Amino acid sequence: LALLGCGTVGRAFVALAAAKDAELRARYGVRPRFTGGLTRAAPGWIAPDGMAAIDLLASGWPASGTIPPGANAFGAADGSVAGARFAATCPADVVIELTPLDPLTGEPATGHVRAALAAGRQVVTANKGPIAHAYRELRALARERGVALRFESTVLDGTPIFNLAEFSLPATRVDGFRGPLNSTSNFVLGAMAGGRSSEEAVADAQAAGIAEANPAYDLDGWDASVKATVLANVLMDADLRPADVARVELGAAAMRAALAALPPGHTLKQMVEAHRAPDGSVRAEVRLKALASDDPLAHLTGMETAIQLRTDTMGDLTIIEGAGGPGQTAFGVLADVLAIARGLGAPDLPIREEDHP
Amino acid sequence: LALLGCGTVGRAFVALAAAKDAELRARYGVRPRFTGGLTRAAPGWIAPDGMAAIDLLASGWPASGTIPPGANAFGAADGSVAGARFAATCPADVVIELTPLDPLTGEPATGHVRAALAAGRQVVTANKGPIAHAYRELRALARERGVALRFESTVLDGTPIFNLAEFSLPATRVDGFRGPLNSTSNFVLGAMAGGRSSEEAVADAQAAGIAEANPAYDLDGWDASVKATVLANVLMDADLRPADVARVELGAAAMRAALAALPPGHTLKQMVEAHRAPDGSVRAEVRLKALASDDPLAHLTGMETAIQLRTDTMGDLTIIEGAGGPGQTAFGVLADVLAIARGLGAPDLPIREEDHP
Repeated sequence: LALLGCGTVGRAFVALAAAKDAELRARYGVRPRFTGGLTRAAPGWIAPDGMAAIDLLASGWPASGTIPPGANAFGAADGSVAGARFAATCPADVVIELTPLDPLTGEPATGHVRAALAAGRQVVTANKGPIAHAYRELRALARERGVALRFESTVLDGTPIFNLAEFSLPATRVDGFRGPLNSTSNFVLGAMAGGRSSEEAVADAQAAGIAEANPAYDLDGWDASVKATVLANVLMDADLRPADVARVELGAAAMRAALAALPPGHTLKQMVEAHRAPDGSVRAEVRLKALASDDPLAHLTGMETAIQLRTDTMGDLTIIEGAGGPGQTAFGVLADVLAIARGLGAPDLPIREEDHP
Repeated sequence: LALLGCGTVGRAFVALAAAKDAELRARYGVRPRFTGGLTRAAPGWIAPDGMAAIDLLASGWPASGTIPPGANAFGAADGSVAGARFAATCPADVVIELTPLDPLTGEPATGHVRAALAAGRQVVTANKGPIAHAYRELRALARERGVALRFESTVLDGTPIFNLAEFSLPATRVDGFRGPLNSTSNFVLGAMAGGRSSEEAVADAQAAGIAEANPAYDLDGWDASVKATVLANVLMDADLRPADVARVELGAAAMRAALAALPPGHTLKQMVEAHRAPDGSVRAEVRLKALASDDPLAHLTGMETAIQLRTDTMGDLTIIEGAGGPGQTAFGVLADVLAIARGLGAPDLPIREEDHP
């Protein structure tokens, strides 16, 4: 495994892999070895023989500011290493893309994923950008190269959604979905319904560690529109971009107005909704919705997120994530790595001679 | 595929397989062929060359009372055929066990499953009995023979629970679960909370087609205790029997008393709960619980069922089934058949020469 990007989620993933080491060997015959890491915060490295998660964890990289013991420095001495070059050349079977998201462009993550796939590497990413902006191209590339592209943690942290659909909802058509996918907006709405001003509620969300520095990304529906795009493209075979998702009546002023006009017994949520139009196209939108009290989604706390899938085989299925965080996102990455290692839904892990002489 | 038992669920399964025929071929390269059927209501048959789902559907079996065109009669002329003999000798790769449940003994389904596995056949069942009464024995037998034993539809119809845990929650420890698993009880409680007597509410549930002829099986918690046993044995590696599940304060009189004492803003549900005790053992119980309004499970209608899993990797995950029925149960059977055909989590489908000369 090579880590491209290693912030909060990357460190949680290494810790999880270390904690689960014995279980992975016993249950699946799998022992992850880390063969490279690259992040903006610390020197990059490669270790063709690989190191166990516990040893990478003990090295303190990237917080240490130095490469792990026994690893070789990656990149030029001036630090101008390129993520795409790392993705294409690091000695890894699986490249794990965890760099920060630019939701408007999907870069640099899309370039990283493209380079890794083109070089025949399996890819796991928690980054919504590549899936929202370039899913069809990357899916085709992965199929052509016979490798996996997995991305469970792009929506609702590691809550099984894409893996659920692929492995446990076979032969099923998803006709639509809905959910309060942006936890910051719904945390803020809950606090405002309790009497806080929008500014106070945003400060509360930031203090709770769930809000971005710029709350408009959440409150104005950009985060939800990127998630809606990923879900629609993957589950409903749409070809949307985030700008194709209608964003209706959002932001602090609309939230205040909608709360003031809320019918008794209802709860206001920022909701993503998608459906297939009569012409076969997929329409998605983000808007404030007044949910009636008999809607299970009306009673989620601000920390809970959920998605309801409308299917032709099972009717409505709803999945609620109790509390999300880096640990849950890291779990989704591990689930994807294990799906590859177990040969589920993808070609078996190719062993390349040049990597394992 | 051979059908052992073919009531409402079996007919829904054949219809679903027929409706999804083109999709199964296109997406998975799979085309189910039916090679035998046995039920108490009609003559049994075998057809070594198999017939497509659409042809079996068109034959009208078992309602027709005659074997499908081109099939051979199975069993003695006096009708004293044995399910276990059918399970062991019918020319099928997968035996689908759908006979009526005797929850107290698990028979005759357990004997059918045992015979099929011992003969090297893959087994899919929607029958709780074998999993509640003989899971460890049958699991060991399946592993020894290198075949699959799958049972998604034993709890919450075909809602992905066991397949979810196996394929999409890898390396995860389930520390407990809770849920309103018996829809009849919760339908009746909802009607009683709305002012109906328990007798009227039971009649409503029977009219809605969700209650058994004998409501005590649901209201006294037997159905829930069998489901709790299946979940605990599979998800938590327990070795319980239904009698090991505590049934506390159940039945119509307890329901009336608990409703009368219900705190404002709460909802009464018949809940299954299981947890791991400090000594490592798994404890499960069925009881009436007053759920507070911030509990997502408090707002389910009487037709919805749900399970909340407490896990070490994802925290709490809740899955809600919007509406269950034979179609949803049939879907779980199809999901299990496809998991076998796709080689997920089980040995590849063995092609036996004697069956496909």
